[in-house]
Amino acid sequence: MDVEYPRRWPRWSPLRSSDSSAASLNHQDESSVNGMESLDYEVIENLAYREDQASRGKLHYASYVTLKWLFVLLIGVATGFSAFFINIAVENFSGWKFSATFAIMEHSYFAGFLVYSLFNVALVFSSVYIVTKFAPAAAGSGIPEIKGYLNGIDTPGILLFRTLVGKIFGSIGSVGGGLALGKEGPLVHTGACIASLVGQGGSTKHFVNWRWLQVFKNDRDRRDLVTCGCAAGVSAAFRAPVGGVLFALEEVTSWWRSQLLWRVFFTSAVVAVVVRSAMGWCTHGNCGHFGSGGFIIWDVSGGQDDYSFYELFPMAMVGVIGGLLGALFNQLTLYLSSWRRNTLHKRGDRVKIVEACLVSLLTSVLSFGLPLLTKCTPCPDAEKYPDIVCPRPEGTYGNYVNFHCSSQNEYNDLATIFFNTQDDAIRNLFSTKTLNEYSASSLLTFLALFFSLAVITFGTAVPAGQFVPGIMIGSTYGRLVGMFVVNVYKKLNIDEGTYALLGAASFLGGSMRMTVSLCVIMVEITNNLKLLPLIMLVLLISKAVGDAFNAGFYEEQAHMKGIPLLESRPKHFMRKTQAKETCQSQKVVYFNRVSKVGHIVSVLQSNNHHGFPVIDKLQSGETVVIGLILRSYLLVLLQSKMDFQSSDSHEDVGGQFTSRHSVKDFVKPVSSKGLSIQDIYLNPQEMELYIDLEPFVNPSPYIVPEDMSLTKVYNLFRQLGLRHVLVVPRPSQVVGVITRKDLITEPSEDKEVQELSAVRMNRSNPLLQQLLV
Amino acid sequence: MDVEYPRRWPRWSPLRSSDSSAASLNHQDESSVNGMESLDYEVIENLAYREDQASRGKLHYASYVTLKWLFVLLIGVATGFSAFFINIAVENFSGWKFSATFAIMEHSYFAGFLVYSLFNVALVFSSVYIVTKFAPAAAGSGIPEIKGYLNGIDTPGILLFRTLVGKIFGSIGSVGGGLALGKEGPLVHTGACIASLVGQGGSTKHFVNWRWLQVFKNDRDRRDLVTCGCAAGVSAAFRAPVGGVLFALEEVTSWWRSQLLWRVFFTSAVVAVVVRSAMGWCTHGNCGHFGSGGFIIWDVSGGQDDYSFYELFPMAMVGVIGGLLGALFNQLTLYLSSWRRNTLHKRGDRVKIVEACLVSLLTSVLSFGLPLLTKCTPCPDAEKYPDIVCPRPEGTYGNYVNFHCSSQNEYNDLATIFFNTQDDAIRNLFSTKTLNEYSASSLLTFLALFFSLAVITFGTAVPAGQFVPGIMIGSTYGRLVGMFVVNVYKKLNIDEGTYALLGAASFLGGSMRMTVSLCVIMVEITNNLKLLPLIMLVLLISKAVGDAFNAGFYEEQAHMKGIPLLESRPKHFMRKTQAKETCQSQKVVYFNRVSKVGHIVSVLQSNNHHGFPVIDKLQSGETVVIGLILRSYLLVLLQSKMDFQSSDSHEDVGGQFTSRHSVKDFVKPVSSKGLSIQDIYLNPQEMELYIDLEPFVNPSPYIVPEDMSLTKVYNLFRQLGLRHVLVVPRPSQVVGVITRKDLITEPSEDKEVQELSAVRMNRSNPLLQQLLV
Repeated sequence: MDVEYPRRWPRWSPLRSSDSSAASLNHQDESSVNGMESLDYEVIENLAYREDQASRGKLHYASYVTLKWLFVLLIGVATGFSAFFINIAVENFSGWKFSATFAIMEHSYFAGFLVYSLFNVALVFSSVYIVTKFAPAAAGSGIPEIKGYLNGIDTPGILLFRTLVGKIFGSIGSVGGGLALGKEGPLVHTGACIASLVGQGGSTKHFVNWRWLQVFKNDRDRRDLVTCGCAAGVSAAFRAPVGGVLFALEEVTSWWRSQLLWRVFFTSAVVAVVVRSAMGWCTHGNCGHFGSGGFIIWDVSGGQDDYSFYELFPMAMVGVIGGLLGALFNQLTLYLSSWRRNTLHKRGDRVKIVEACLVSLLTSVLSFGLPLLTKCTPCPDAEKYPDIVCPRPEGTYGNYVNFHCSSQNEYNDLATIFFNTQDDAIRNLFSTKTLNEYSASSLLTFLALFFSLAVITFGTAVPAGQFVPGIMIGSTYGRLVGMFVVNVYKKLNIDEGTYALLGAASFLGGSMRMTVSLCVIMVEITNNLKLLPLIMLVLLISKAVGDAFNAGFYEEQAHMKGIPLLESRPKHFMRKTQAKETCQSQKVVYFNRVSKVGHIVSVLQSNNHHGFPVIDKLQSGETVVIGLILRSYLLVLLQSKMDFQSSDSHEDVGGQFTSRHSVKDFVKPVSSKGLSIQDIYLNPQEMELYIDLEPFVNPSPYIVPEDMSLTKVYNLFRQLGLRHVLVVPRPSQVVGVITRKDLITEPSEDKEVQELSAVRMNRSNPLLQQLLV
Repeated sequence: MDVEYPRRWPRWSPLRSSDSSAASLNHQDESSVNGMESLDYEVIENLAYREDQASRGKLHYASYVTLKWLFVLLIGVATGFSAFFINIAVENFSGWKFSATFAIMEHSYFAGFLVYSLFNVALVFSSVYIVTKFAPAAAGSGIPEIKGYLNGIDTPGILLFRTLVGKIFGSIGSVGGGLALGKEGPLVHTGACIASLVGQGGSTKHFVNWRWLQVFKNDRDRRDLVTCGCAAGVSAAFRAPVGGVLFALEEVTSWWRSQLLWRVFFTSAVVAVVVRSAMGWCTHGNCGHFGSGGFIIWDVSGGQDDYSFYELFPMAMVGVIGGLLGALFNQLTLYLSSWRRNTLHKRGDRVKIVEACLVSLLTSVLSFGLPLLTKCTPCPDAEKYPDIVCPRPEGTYGNYVNFHCSSQNEYNDLATIFFNTQDDAIRNLFSTKTLNEYSASSLLTFLALFFSLAVITFGTAVPAGQFVPGIMIGSTYGRLVGMFVVNVYKKLNIDEGTYALLGAASFLGGSMRMTVSLCVIMVEITNNLKLLPLIMLVLLISKAVGDAFNAGFYEEQAHMKGIPLLESRPKHFMRKTQAKETCQSQKVVYFNRVSKVGHIVSVLQSNNHHGFPVIDKLQSGETVVIGLILRSYLLVLLQSKMDFQSSDSHEDVGGQFTSRHSVKDFVKPVSSKGLSIQDIYLNPQEMELYIDLEPFVNPSPYIVPEDMSLTKVYNLFRQLGLRHVLVVPRPSQVVGVITRKDLITEPSEDKEVQELSAVRMNRSNPLLQQLLV
């Protein structure tokens, strides 16, 4: 009965040889059973419909909508508080570190350095230890993986509770430890984790599991929640709610639905309110060292108001530099992380830990040692610049730090940016009305060293964001250009801080290649709308320049990690390829409607496809495709054994399946491996039984004719977020043509609809009647 | 040979009876031959490919991309200058009007009123005359029609050159004439018109036609450009570039592609720079009355910095009021415009002109007369409020106008907002640090009357935007709530202006139901990022409240005008409907591959379908669907007569069609009616000839199996922007399954691709070989 139909099917050759990139691609493909597509949804929908007949429907729908709103509220609140917690911890650790160091430095520089570097190494050690031992998926930025998840690829462990914990505490260690990385990428990941956990009602393993919250049984809802979580992360990281929404839209999601906008927007708003309230609570001195620098917002609203036409040229130059350096940064981090991935990190956790500690030590040496070697600068004339406090008073984190300066009226410009937290350093770089605060040599030194540090640091096994380092690098060369402009044009209203800001935008644009979202984020964090057109200009240039060299940072990283993102644009060659040509070398593996259990087991063992067409024979002898069944469903059926039958015939059993299976049985928990064929044990008697697959198939998967161009298939696939498209022969006839009109007119009466659905439920359509004998 | 295949096809009953809404729907459907879908694109692509073989390809592509960027630059510049021109004209007309009125009022109030109202009526008359006689499509907002265009419905005349001219000059008249409407909606329409004209290389009729610019031969490119134009319009209207991008994304487009974001963003940036430069040129006094109020930007950045928790309740109340009033506004305008459409405006142009002039007169009477009846208020204590200048100096447009006040130390609060341009009125309503400037009774009077005026005015035959009136209404009740809050909570840092701003946001949210874009626009026009969370909150509430009553303003208007927008969400009943059920009552009209000319003509005459399946018989006697042909293509073929042949057989003629037809022949000019079957004259001999349709079909339209749920069909249709989906029987076999993997791996060698395409070009695939004998 179960003859292999002699057709083609994707043959996923089990490449596990020396070609590690291909192997990892393959691995990813296997792990992506998450089945993030309308298809899954549809099948479950079918079952769900049978389960809760007409009466329960409306009430259930209302509670579903209410819960979904409640959930995004929860996500917003939780992400806001997580961000707040991370910030308080980081600020306090940094505060203790710097005040201790300054205090001890009064006695001995060496002892000060020792305390400083030990503090750093201890924090970084805690971070790398947590990550390697407890939550390996928490290493790195997390954004490429989340992008992958929302594109349909589930990297194992990326959304687990332990990853969330690792990310939060790891970030505190790595950022507090003064490494050249930020906490923004990790916060996006944190938001996504929270969203995913909320969506599945907590984590079963870690005793935080609320059954009543488990209403979201399909991947589409989860995907929506994770999108909200990403927006919440950005919103919390930068206090940029609109930027968060745009980031989720532009950078992360692949299948955007306009309904989602509203929900994402709400989450962002909640985060903004939560963060604001929490910070309000802190103003009364409840939060230790946590002060105005708690959430990065580098206010430049008091800065340059106007700009002249001739300033556009140096600004464009900033854009070009940003594009070049951004592309270089992407390329270098790519080489380094792929080397780490393939060589260094394969040697075990100990190597990772030692590596991170060494990087931390190097960072400490550079940030402490270099300012020591720099000559101090005399303070600006107090009468000419009455607003400037120089040197800064002890215990504050402003400009003009007195570090290793002999006279009380001097400051160390390199220490102001290097021997400081990154948030404060950026604030100092952006600072307006502080002309010539930095010497060009200090800025150049800092640029070269910090760039190298950022490249080396990214890829160590700690949570690492690229926003803040990017802003550091960008604002440094931006300020350099600004100094040049000030000295050449000699106009008073030009401000170096403006160029620093543009430089930051240009580097981020050149590296991450975001446009609208980045622009809005920059405006929101600097609180200056007047610079918007300039930021746009600079971003346009830097992105264009960067695109000439390589892909964006996250895309490069995703590619390196073997996450096969479907790009939004089909490739050029697809235009001239037909659908069937792509599956020419493949053999179609299909099931008959009633299949032997043994056959199913052997098919599942012999390949790792995730979906199988199901074909039935009509009485006339013709075959007909009755749908597609997922591997995961087959595994559930094999495990439960409830549907085994002794005969190979099928009967119209109608609603009987309902009692045997509930929708929940078919839902795969987020980020777990799910069932595998190896987990299932069947005795020889069971292997001889049959199973009728019809109730469990997706009755109408999307189909394309075999000679459709691959571009069209790609668009179908990408726009609808599919995982399987069946390629079928050209149809022999047309039953009807559906046009816009057919989809706009509603049925005149509800009665009609009910009749139609009754028709469907009774399976009185001719085809199914034929099938059901 | 040409037997009707006994199947179903959408029967569009020619309802032209008393049911005007159905009739207009039908009318729209007929006019929507614009065929905005990948399908058209694909077919032309085929022809184009045959036309310019391999060699020309790359160069052509590069010039295409360059031109596309050049075009969006052009669109940005042109839209920016149009907006600037409209603003200068409006500001100068208003300036002359008010200074003349004030001057004459010193002698006689009646003469002042006469001048004022004559000025207004003359301007409104010019506007309504231009619109009714010259550019009827320029009436109203234009946004519903543009939404329709981008959703796939081409309202006749909406993107013509005359519409553009009518819109620009009509706006000047209607806004300058002091009607209760704005120029923002019309500017969006203006941007779209410019984009469309640029896209087709000028207007053939009006001697502005550049052949070399006519590179965009397909509707997809035009759609992209029009989207850019919309963003440019908003960007120019509000000086809100990010808001413009978001508006295009959230409100206007239906099929968003992320590639577009970048281009739209660029257009917005260009507009911002153009507007800024033009305004800079005006600061030197070159632009008459055009001054700081030129482009509405109501700076409240100096306003309320902080807010307390207990203020959230009155703010939420503002949201609720906004939702209620917005929904009421939508409903009232809907009733009124549908009454106008069906009754009043059917009586001819004269009625329209008289109506508009009467509305203008009423507006003049109210705005001049009511302040006369109001008691003047003494100026605030000059010692307590040293910043306030009261009454305002002559020739300025600030707060505290002295209008019909006996004492020199008094002002008329109603005149400050009513007897003023709307831009200045809003600035006064938003103004901060002017506690208790307005009395509650004045605000209430103004609210009631302006609301009524706005309702009455919308729908007259002049260009009319709803943004500015919405802001006026909203800020009035917002300020009322603000007064209440100030008097109850008695805290000094609360500012009435903040509540006015929130009120404006709430009314727009309650009426237009936009979220993210509106929020960003509000922030950009008020230049105050700190209020962002509050604006979000208010918008969330007002939209939710409004949604409980009716649809958004533009959707309601589009529905009333019979523009059948495909909503983003499939309707609930579709879940239980199968694809074939929607076309149950229809008869499929199809063509054989080689059809008689006479038969084609009679089929085209007997119905108004836009696409026809083409079916061929194989040698084995089986039928096979070889594709879909568009009505417009058939008309071109019938008109050119080049492809007529005497025999009913078909031969493999390969590239011969190329020489006979170029792609251009099949492109319909934007917003023209295109060919009609009535235009085509064929003699009886020609009617007996045959035509082989194969070279002109879209060989692989999207297909769905007949029992797919309508929800899935809807998603396919909506996401891919289709116009025709063929419903086919369940397939009998599966040729292959395409998964993500197949779409990610590139072919290893270029050679392979060439071979594949060669295969296609040689038609060596088995099916076509069979077809080609």
